[in-house]
Amino acid sequence: TVDHSYSLTTGTTSAELLKKLNEQRDIIALMEVKMKEMKNTIRQLRITEARLQEELRERDRMLSASAVVRKKI
Amino acid sequence: TVDHSYSLTTGTTSAELLKKLNEQRDIIALMEVKMKEMKNTIRQLRITEARLQEELRERDRMLSASAVVRKKI
Repeated sequence: TVDHSYSLTTGTTSAELLKKLNEQRDIIALMEVKMKEMKNTIRQLRITEARLQEELRERDRMLSASAVVRKKI
Repeated sequence: TVDHSYSLTTGTTSAELLKKLNEQRDIIALMEVKMKEMKNTIRQLRITEARLQEELRERDRMLSASAVVRKKI
């Protein structure tokens, strides 16, 4: 396995490490925003799914009732 | 506004910066895995939504046909 850890190399200054640290912090902040958006999308899609399932059940009830009416006729 | 940037403070060694850098790298890796999972969930929920919409349309066609039959009777 390859170790992707950052390691001290000759000539790596604290200022350079600090720059990388701040770059990573910005990446994490962007990813947090993106994840929040995705969570909202998932929540919304689950609500839509529940609504559609309920509408389907309603249609099935109507179809059953309709079949009963025809039998009586 | 508060600046959350990391900054050099007295006594912050390169070794400490490096440790933080590797911690952040691990956080980013975990977030990438989580985002991939969420993307798959969203894709799956969209497929389910499309299927339910199609089933609803089918039920509505059946209900229309059923209404026509009753009118003829």
